[in-house]
Amino acid sequence: MSQPELTPTESSHELPTGFRFAGATGGIKASGKPDVSLIVSDDACVAAAVTTTNQVFAAPVQLCRDRSPRSTCRAVITNSGNANACTGQEGFDDAVAMCESVAKMVGCDAEDVLVMSTGVIGHRLPMDKVERGISLAGEALGDSERHFLAAADAICTTDQYRKTASASFEVSGKTYRIAAMCKGAGMIAPNMATMLGVIVTDFPLTEASAQTSLRRIVERTFNRVSVDGHMSTNDTVILLSSGAAGDGSDAENATFIEAATDVSLKLAKLLVADGEGAVRFFEVAVEGAGSDKDALDIAKCVAASPLVKTAIQGGDPNWGRIVSAAGYAGPKIEVGKTALSIEGRDVFRDGRPLKFDAAELSGLMKQASEVKLQLVVGSGSGSAKYWSSDLTEDYVRFNSLYTT
Amino acid sequence: MSQPELTPTESSHELPTGFRFAGATGGIKASGKPDVSLIVSDDACVAAAVTTTNQVFAAPVQLCRDRSPRSTCRAVITNSGNANACTGQEGFDDAVAMCESVAKMVGCDAEDVLVMSTGVIGHRLPMDKVERGISLAGEALGDSERHFLAAADAICTTDQYRKTASASFEVSGKTYRIAAMCKGAGMIAPNMATMLGVIVTDFPLTEASAQTSLRRIVERTFNRVSVDGHMSTNDTVILLSSGAAGDGSDAENATFIEAATDVSLKLAKLLVADGEGAVRFFEVAVEGAGSDKDALDIAKCVAASPLVKTAIQGGDPNWGRIVSAAGYAGPKIEVGKTALSIEGRDVFRDGRPLKFDAAELSGLMKQASEVKLQLVVGSGSGSAKYWSSDLTEDYVRFNSLYTT
Repeated sequence: MSQPELTPTESSHELPTGFRFAGATGGIKASGKPDVSLIVSDDACVAAAVTTTNQVFAAPVQLCRDRSPRSTCRAVITNSGNANACTGQEGFDDAVAMCESVAKMVGCDAEDVLVMSTGVIGHRLPMDKVERGISLAGEALGDSERHFLAAADAICTTDQYRKTASASFEVSGKTYRIAAMCKGAGMIAPNMATMLGVIVTDFPLTEASAQTSLRRIVERTFNRVSVDGHMSTNDTVILLSSGAAGDGSDAENATFIEAATDVSLKLAKLLVADGEGAVRFFEVAVEGAGSDKDALDIAKCVAASPLVKTAIQGGDPNWGRIVSAAGYAGPKIEVGKTALSIEGRDVFRDGRPLKFDAAELSGLMKQASEVKLQLVVGSGSGSAKYWSSDLTEDYVRFNSLYTT
Repeated sequence: MSQPELTPTESSHELPTGFRFAGATGGIKASGKPDVSLIVSDDACVAAAVTTTNQVFAAPVQLCRDRSPRSTCRAVITNSGNANACTGQEGFDDAVAMCESVAKMVGCDAEDVLVMSTGVIGHRLPMDKVERGISLAGEALGDSERHFLAAADAICTTDQYRKTASASFEVSGKTYRIAAMCKGAGMIAPNMATMLGVIVTDFPLTEASAQTSLRRIVERTFNRVSVDGHMSTNDTVILLSSGAAGDGSDAENATFIEAATDVSLKLAKLLVADGEGAVRFFEVAVEGAGSDKDALDIAKCVAASPLVKTAIQGGDPNWGRIVSAAGYAGPKIEVGKTALSIEGRDVFRDGRPLKFDAAELSGLMKQASEVKLQLVVGSGSGSAKYWSSDLTEDYVRFNSLYTT
């Protein structure tokens, strides 16, 4: 897809001090691609996690919940190729065993290791292969960009490209760094996709501030995108803070959150852009709602409508589908004050369609790397943005494949 | 599609006493197909209406709300080819004018006429063509099956076939009849589809019981199906009762509701089966939920998941997508008691996958006229059923067409 704004991988990454990374191939994936990713903190670090709200959740999700937030975290182990979901007590034991292997290697308590999995659901992990991958990853650890990228590669499943981003920021004369990786949301095979993400920083955070910060960051980034609205059993984002770059203070936390939100939004957008079958990417910006929550609900509903998603696919400035989706989203709207612009062209105002050059606007939509829909739903002060990909024949084709 | 159970049109209809029907071609549709449908009650009849909950609703919807329930209704006028939505005060005036023309013809107050519209949104009605259609329909009125079918044809837009059903029932030695028509939910062109329906009966109802009955009927039929979840600005179902076949009593109302629910469910299923691009039709039956409402929310969420809909398309017994959709639907489920069968084959029990012959089950799914998913989500007593169509490449292709 044409995504000039969205470079799959930055040319160089600002890596925070205090972490080592590795990717390895244990053989879990039939393709022979890397499938074990390891991040080790040189010293005890602060860890927080935000996980899926799906009531059907995987064993590693349970472990992450049990073990975070904590201030003595030493490692995150991730396998791709198998989600370890719907695998019962045995699956939970496997997740525990993965952490124990890493702990033995690193020299820490097993409780200080977090774990994530992604891939096929309903199958036991091939533990011999997982253990081989863990062992190989342990030998491959390093703190260079090459190592970071290898770790990012190894969490991917049906992603078409690795997803990484980084940033540095200064507060009180000290420079701090954030580096992050995630994997999507390509919903092809085998059963469902999972969003996994790790954000590492050398900015110091307490357990409590790490947890609060991560939730705020995720709310405004990973929770603002969707490919098809189907929530995974394994979704997890982990934040690790080594604090190795300085002491920081709670007052400086806002600066960290801002920088980490930027990095995460970049990743979240990559995730949508790489959504299964996606050709075109779009942003729904809602203003004038009764509250930010109302605006978000409306933006989400517009972004999720198959009729809107297919219109984006076809480059069709079909205002009726967009306005009517806002009308059934739930929150109260002021129909007489509703307005819509697509790619900056006004097509609807005061609840009435405007005359516009549909052919020209369609051309603009087809050229845009990110189609912008700006919707005013009243005179309130609530606003929100949401990002999604179009719905394509390829999405249907891939997801209709017989995969069980 | 292969729908042995769903005959598009019954071979003969039980028409209730007291109504005349007509379809006519006013020229609103460029295709030259019938576009004006008229139903006239010989005497004052009881009318109730249930309309879209979309905040962006069309002018005729407003009129139906203002004028129902009422006991002096004489006619329902419907045009297809133009939805008269997002047309402001002028559009409202046009809807009023349609009713006035019919009233003049029938010899009644304009307030005793209900109106529905379906088709392109954002354009004024071509009133000269609408008036011509009304005039022709008035001349064509009759009480035979041929007239009933002509009226059913004239409400269609992108429907592939007309949708009608009828039934008769006996209470206290008297025979009553119900006949109904509806149109879908083919979401192709031009902007969105609308569900319109009319149920006529000679069973006597009061205004209040008509309204209550219609809401109950719609809740369990038309509100239990979806093609793509995008709610129209024009959705309307009208119930007309002439009472011409006897006096009836409130005690007998339950029998009427049951019969009308059967008729409406038949139409609702036809509507889904004729959903745009639909190849396969499926039923989601949820049991063991905390309440019927919980069960309905879960069934709806499973039926709406694009990953479930594409799995149905591919004949893929992909239990992971179904179980995980139940997990994010909202209502509390007991994961350890979750069970799923597809086409009668158990694939998941007590929160764990079972071994099954996937190839054989896929074959069963591909042959089924209505793929049955039975999901147990706990030990509660709540249950519900919901019907939907699969998501196909054709759906995407048609809805991506540049149509504005």
